[in-house]
Amino acid sequence: MARLMKEWTIDALGAENLKITERRVPEPGPGEVLVRTTAVSLNFRDKLVLENGMGMPLSFPFVPGSDMAGVVEAVGRGVTRFQPGDRVISVFDPTWIDGQKPGTARHPTSFALGGLNPGVASQYVAFPEDWFVAAPESLDDGEASTLPCAGVTAWFALVEKGHPKAGDRVVVQGTGGVSLFGLQIAKAHGAEVIVTSASQEKLERALALGADHGINRVREDWAERVLEITGDHGADHILEMAGGANLGKSLQAVAVQGRISVIGVFEGAEISAPVTPVLLKSPVIQGIGVAHRRALQDFVVAIDRTAIKPVIDARYSFEQFREALAHLDRGPFGKVVVEF
Amino acid sequence: MARLMKEWTIDALGAENLKITERRVPEPGPGEVLVRTTAVSLNFRDKLVLENGMGMPLSFPFVPGSDMAGVVEAVGRGVTRFQPGDRVISVFDPTWIDGQKPGTARHPTSFALGGLNPGVASQYVAFPEDWFVAAPESLDDGEASTLPCAGVTAWFALVEKGHPKAGDRVVVQGTGGVSLFGLQIAKAHGAEVIVTSASQEKLERALALGADHGINRVREDWAERVLEITGDHGADHILEMAGGANLGKSLQAVAVQGRISVIGVFEGAEISAPVTPVLLKSPVIQGIGVAHRRALQDFVVAIDRTAIKPVIDARYSFEQFREALAHLDRGPFGKVVVEF
Amino acid sequence: MARLMKEWTIDALGAENLKITERRVPEPGPGEVLVRTTAVSLNFRDKLVLENGMGMPLSFPFVPGSDMAGVVEAVGRGVTRFQPGDRVISVFDPTWIDGQKPGTARHPTSFALGGLNPGVASQYVAFPEDWFVAAPESLDDGEASTLPCAGVTAWFALVEKGHPKAGDRVVVQGTGGVSLFGLQIAKAHGAEVIVTSASQEKLERALALGADHGINRVREDWAERVLEITGDHGADHILEMAGGANLGKSLQAVAVQGRISVIGVFEGAEISAPVTPVLLKSPVIQGIGVAHRRALQDFVVAIDRTAIKPVIDARYSFEQFREALAHLDRGPFGKVVVEF
Amino acid sequence: MARLMKEWTIDALGAENLKITERRVPEPGPGEVLVRTTAVSLNFRDKLVLENGMGMPLSFPFVPGSDMAGVVEAVGRGVTRFQPGDRVISVFDPTWIDGQKPGTARHPTSFALGGLNPGVASQYVAFPEDWFVAAPESLDDGEASTLPCAGVTAWFALVEKGHPKAGDRVVVQGTGGVSLFGLQIAKAHGAEVIVTSASQEKLERALALGADHGINRVREDWAERVLEITGDHGADHILEMAGGANLGKSLQAVAVQGRISVIGVFEGAEISAPVTPVLLKSPVIQGIGVAHRRALQDFVVAIDRTAIKPVIDARYSFEQFREALAHLDRGPFGKVVVEF
Repeated sequence: MARLMKEWTIDALGAENLKITERRVPEPGPGEVLVRTTAVSLNFRDKLVLENGMGMPLSFPFVPGSDMAGVVEAVGRGVTRFQPGDRVISVFDPTWIDGQKPGTARHPTSFALGGLNPGVASQYVAFPEDWFVAAPESLDDGEASTLPCAGVTAWFALVEKGHPKAGDRVVVQGTGGVSLFGLQIAKAHGAEVIVTSASQEKLERALALGADHGINRVREDWAERVLEITGDHGADHILEMAGGANLGKSLQAVAVQGRISVIGVFEGAEISAPVTPVLLKSPVIQGIGVAHRRALQDFVVAIDRTAIKPVIDARYSFEQFREALAHLDRGPFGKVVVEF
Repeated sequence: MARLMKEWTIDALGAENLKITERRVPEPGPGEVLVRTTAVSLNFRDKLVLENGMGMPLSFPFVPGSDMAGVVEAVGRGVTRFQPGDRVISVFDPTWIDGQKPGTARHPTSFALGGLNPGVASQYVAFPEDWFVAAPESLDDGEASTLPCAGVTAWFALVEKGHPKAGDRVVVQGTGGVSLFGLQIAKAHGAEVIVTSASQEKLERALALGADHGINRVREDWAERVLEITGDHGADHILEMAGGANLGKSLQAVAVQGRISVIGVFEGAEISAPVTPVLLKSPVIQGIGVAHRRALQDFVVAIDRTAIKPVIDARYSFEQFREALAHLDRGPFGKVVVEF
Repeated sequence: MARLMKEWTIDALGAENLKITERRVPEPGPGEVLVRTTAVSLNFRDKLVLENGMGMPLSFPFVPGSDMAGVVEAVGRGVTRFQPGDRVISVFDPTWIDGQKPGTARHPTSFALGGLNPGVASQYVAFPEDWFVAAPESLDDGEASTLPCAGVTAWFALVEKGHPKAGDRVVVQGTGGVSLFGLQIAKAHGAEVIVTSASQEKLERALALGADHGINRVREDWAERVLEITGDHGADHILEMAGGANLGKSLQAVAVQGRISVIGVFEGAEISAPVTPVLLKSPVIQGIGVAHRRALQDFVVAIDRTAIKPVIDARYSFEQFREALAHLDRGPFGKVVVEF
Repeated sequence: MARLMKEWTIDALGAENLKITERRVPEPGPGEVLVRTTAVSLNFRDKLVLENGMGMPLSFPFVPGSDMAGVVEAVGRGVTRFQPGDRVISVFDPTWIDGQKPGTARHPTSFALGGLNPGVASQYVAFPEDWFVAAPESLDDGEASTLPCAGVTAWFALVEKGHPKAGDRVVVQGTGGVSLFGLQIAKAHGAEVIVTSASQEKLERALALGADHGINRVREDWAERVLEITGDHGADHILEMAGGANLGKSLQAVAVQGRISVIGVFEGAEISAPVTPVLLKSPVIQGIGVAHRRALQDFVVAIDRTAIKPVIDARYSFEQFREALAHLDRGPFGKVVVEF
């Protein structure tokens, strides 16, 4: 007799349409693994996809969520990378294995889970084995579920692209999931980390996490303050989380030949900046769109060899999926996780 | 008896103040070389410096010009790199030898000749030997004088930063000095080159120089046309010469993980663009501020080993320095040179 | 009624066991494509595998050969990258997609075709679609079949790892398949190419192909001659095809901070060299083991955009497979190809 | 009245000729700084230079020593980088500023202090300002004097060339000065560090310094042990300090596409290795010849921002210079320093 499982779905766009539905636990086909989901980590992107599909043609019923941890329950024919009992985490965009990102200039769309590919807010998923990597041994399931998007985005920007060195000055804007991973990853490489925030209380928590400096960006000109802190050297690497005109401030704060990773867009869908520092300082402005699978594997290794523990602001139960999503609007300090 | 020489100077800001003055031929001090100038190449920057100093505190009488070719006439004590008779060209910013560019985030100013350092529109200059490199053997003096700024800027963007490979699609915006060098350098590395211009006649000349495709940016949406030409792949590297909102078009045309070198600012002092392609395509947007001395030396070697001949739109005499400057306003096809 | 096809097989180690056998044309399974082979290019490795398996546990009957061109005849369920009629070439090691090479320090074995994976000396092969890339349009089938191993090895060393720039001095040792591709690829990027050979006649042919200099390594000390040709600068990149003590000569000839790609082992299974130039010149000595699939795709693009035509010393028919193999012992100038 | 100072000199090759001599304190010429030496750090190279000149034509009386810390006492005309009272350290080869190393393939000689340039075992030195960088604030003079050669060599190999990332497995051979810096620098970047030594007691001290694993290379096959410790992954980076046939062991231990930095030559003037792992693993074998000035500046910044304290095995007085040199023969754990 077939087992049933629960999952969160929508039948039409709109987070208000989220409901728990039941269907049979899927069978893993050739090359697939059946994974029992133990935790799902939420990203702001999940909200946008539920609201408007982010321009993607969703298939209904649509299951949201891209980031999960779980345990392999069964493997299909031809599977070689996993066996039952293995703890795994999902890969954000499983079409991007390493190196060159798939897609064309005209259609650069990401084939992420919970988007053009199915989502993970199910008690069980049956996906190709290539869609998973081994979970880190040093993290619990909730923590492990935060790596596939937020964690590896910070890693990809800072490590894969940025080649950090001890003594680098790194600016992390805000205290969301990517930013706090950025803080921890930069510290693990010997960098001096400066965190900006609109909240004094969050700055205190960031300092407790290991940040060297906190800048209240409401009370101070954060770029000017970065110049002061660094003795005019500027920031070797800035995780630009706001976009909009904030890029201009990042260009003010960045070191000569420094690096700005454009990751977030909280201040609008346009970026703008004066061009003079672009020419005089010759920085790299690098767009970041999550990461490939190999970087996620590298990051898992790094997690297990360093003291990095993902910062989880709140853990919710499977039934509280909607409450967890709502938490994202309140600007969590780190990640929001749903445990199954 | 001391020899006299002529030079172009201003006593106050404003190109209208340009006049020929006379002074003694300088003596080369310790570590300096005396060079008889044979050609000076003009850049739009020279006009801006004469007009407003570009924010720099000029010393009057001020001699304009950063790019020259000449012959070493005498060497001061301790000079090891040159001897009388050597043909040389100047280095744009002699404080930048290789690798890390000098300066701080707060004061990234370039120590270019014809700016914070003295200019070259003199019949003789006595500068430190480090301010020169050997001229290419395969170019005449007028041609050689075009390398220190325009030539090496294109080289630095395309080669030193861009690591071109045969088959790359490179977009060169416009047909000014940097752009035509970009066209020739990209072709020398096996790239497919697309040139954009507002002038059909200039496009024809660019095609004759070796460009594979010309796009009339007035008649067509150039970014869309790049996608068509490249079968949706997009451009692996774009020399962005306009700035302003044109950066958004470059982001539309750039390949996934491609590269945009921001060099020119003809459309304004701000750059702006939608952020979505920055995230989805993850391109590198690289500011370019000329180049270091070692890149200029590499470029000289390349010039002598390839068929690259700088494109000179017009050659003027020393007395026609003002006419040569005025030519810049008419959008030259390549470079404008003053021969002594 | 099932179609029959012919293929070359051995039932036991030893090239003398090669014979033509018949079996049914395979059916493409899920994710597989059926390809009608039109040409196979031979490598010295094919001889070694037939003789001793190169330490690999071969499955008998064993089909040799790793490099092929062909036409897709049918596609299995789920195939997305190809359709019937597409011209394709094989990927040497289909487990290496991009970036990080699979395998461990203890077991770095390559999963190449005609080795741990099946070979291609069959009239038809049914392989996963990931084992192929599109063939270049500008080459005939025999030419196209030379890219998967020899061609892309030279490309990977010179372009993917070496980042060539116009004016670089590149030394190519010998005139075998990899070396002549190296000559052509280096020239396509504006390099000055020096070829060494024991045969004056082959040097003449290499010069006719575009080499700038030929050195008869029997009559001259080739490393000393490279120093003379380059005005003591040395070679920026050397394709080291001999191994053994020849590495010491390469270290003598290499430029300061130059690059030596170790590719071939014609002079023995050991490399040895004095350590002083390793320290004083700080070169990179880079082992090359063919390339990943993405580099092959880049190379196909480059082939179609440049004038590079693979050099084929001789073309044999399917029935002449053994004669083609025997040709390898005579030191071909370029590649030996079997056309079906 | 001119001040006198003491310095260690030889009038002919041979450490037995070392004696203290007196001469006037030099005057700083144009562009020079007069520095009062406070500490000199010894390298094995100093012994070799005293014994045989290492092939260099020394000028007698010859002052040995390349690495010093000191205080600027006076500055000559035109000096801009320092003022009296500044604490400085010397640059090993002051002709190498950044990027490309000077020299040719035929004459790659290093212009190091205590070799082709004068040495530092003097109470005062008057050198060009470019021969110094600011000393780290967090180190005493003896510690600071260890950076110019041993410290920055490890930094250059691991950081400038190796781009370390958290989780990397790094093997450090031995417990000399470069090796212990390597251990500390790798740990500062989140790596897992494995130290090899012939001495159990030194391994214990290395573990106390932060090494994750120690391998007694006399009792165990160190390469095999590295494979075991890393779960067959192998070492991402190996500091190869022995040379000779030990390179073969390093190739056995190195990860696929890993990196071997060839630094030391304790086991002979030749390196040799089987070529198969060079091809199958495609590692980078990178010769290291100290570093450029910019890397030393980066390293000073890193020292001040991390907890790295150079390991000094013994501190001697100026008069004990010969005893300090003799200490080098006993295989110090870290550095040997002479304090003035």
